[in-house]
Amino acid sequence: MVDPRLSDTRPVTALARRGLMFILSSPSGAGKTTIARKLLQSDPGVALSVSATTRAIRPGEVDGRDYHFVDKPTFDRMADDHEFLEWAHVFGHSYGTPKAQIWAGLKAGTDFLFDIDWQGTQQLSQRAREDVVPVFILPPSIDELRRRLMARGTDDMKVIEARMDRARAEISHWSDYDYVVVNDDIDRCFEKVRRILDAERMRRERQTGLVNFVRQLTGEGSPT
Amino acid sequence: MVDPRLSDTRPVTALARRGLMFILSSPSGAGKTTIARKLLQSDPGVALSVSATTRAIRPGEVDGRDYHFVDKPTFDRMADDHEFLEWAHVFGHSYGTPKAQIWAGLKAGTDFLFDIDWQGTQQLSQRAREDVVPVFILPPSIDELRRRLMARGTDDMKVIEARMDRARAEISHWSDYDYVVVNDDIDRCFEKVRRILDAERMRRERQTGLVNFVRQLTGEGSPT
Repeated sequence: MVDPRLSDTRPVTALARRGLMFILSSPSGAGKTTIARKLLQSDPGVALSVSATTRAIRPGEVDGRDYHFVDKPTFDRMADDHEFLEWAHVFGHSYGTPKAQIWAGLKAGTDFLFDIDWQGTQQLSQRAREDVVPVFILPPSIDELRRRLMARGTDDMKVIEARMDRARAEISHWSDYDYVVVNDDIDRCFEKVRRILDAERMRRERQTGLVNFVRQLTGEGSPT
Repeated sequence: MVDPRLSDTRPVTALARRGLMFILSSPSGAGKTTIARKLLQSDPGVALSVSATTRAIRPGEVDGRDYHFVDKPTFDRMADDHEFLEWAHVFGHSYGTPKAQIWAGLKAGTDFLFDIDWQGTQQLSQRAREDVVPVFILPPSIDELRRRLMARGTDDMKVIEARMDRARAEISHWSDYDYVVVNDDIDRCFEKVRRILDAERMRRERQTGLVNFVRQLTGEGSPT
């Protein structure tokens, strides 16, 4: 008699999985924005979260695509009601990540990319440690960082020094991160960041479909 | 005046790092041995640990390269003195991983590959959780597993069923592992395993050279 399990020839399909929150932080000038853009372009499984903001909509922006544009009382009410995973005031405006869309996306297997600083990372980590993969990108040298900051259109040494101070302050939080990548070459750095994302997707607890998969594999609970 | 830090043009060299213990477990027939061999061949940074064993040396084997061949009293004394990271009795012989070589290797930045079962994994994890990266490889289906086990030179259904039972017993420990990879295609599976290894190498706490690197980067402790 043929073992009934021998007839199981279903192809392996992608297992159900829970998404993750992939955080990239770095001082400005370390290449984070380029790497974030490359990740989004090359991987359809990665999405940006749409933030809520109190700043005015600009020409070309679409409400709900670029940002959720809300007024100050609405933003404050959302913050009070703990509807944000993280939020911050930047240059007189408020920005926040609404929880609801992230929870729904994670459950559906979407990975979210966050381009945020150490304070945002701390907030996210406090609220959802298991879902968060925090990566810090370091410039290869202080010299190279200064060169990159100087290339941003000013030679005013006071402006440069202020940027350097902000960069040093951000770098001082490097040890809050699970992964650290030195950006000595943008392509190599991108490849390393990709590998971190790919590996974290294979963590057992994120592959929610494994429980059923293993049950079928071992014939547990099925007639033998 | 030129900032003295501007003169820092040292190239980025590989940062000092602590090695890791990369564990591959799977039921036999899931492709683990092939993947382990490919890893060792493709990555000079990965080494096999040399086990101690009580079994007799075979023609072609070299003491200290293939195994450390020891007699039973020596092995038992080593086990009693906690000189093994993990050890087991298999088919009447004893096998163990001596701690000393592993500690020295990890400190020097060597990654060790372990092709061991769930019991060895449990022992390693208890003794060195931070250094251990446990990966479990699953076959794509029970049907495929049976086919692979049948291809091993016997059609005796009793032998096959005994192997299947051992495979199911091993699989039942899948949830002890940090990472799980389904081997539906050997090349894809290998690439996934590689990515896990590469990512784990970028964990902050393994890159022991980062502390000094960041100190130089921010000019901390140097004259300004």
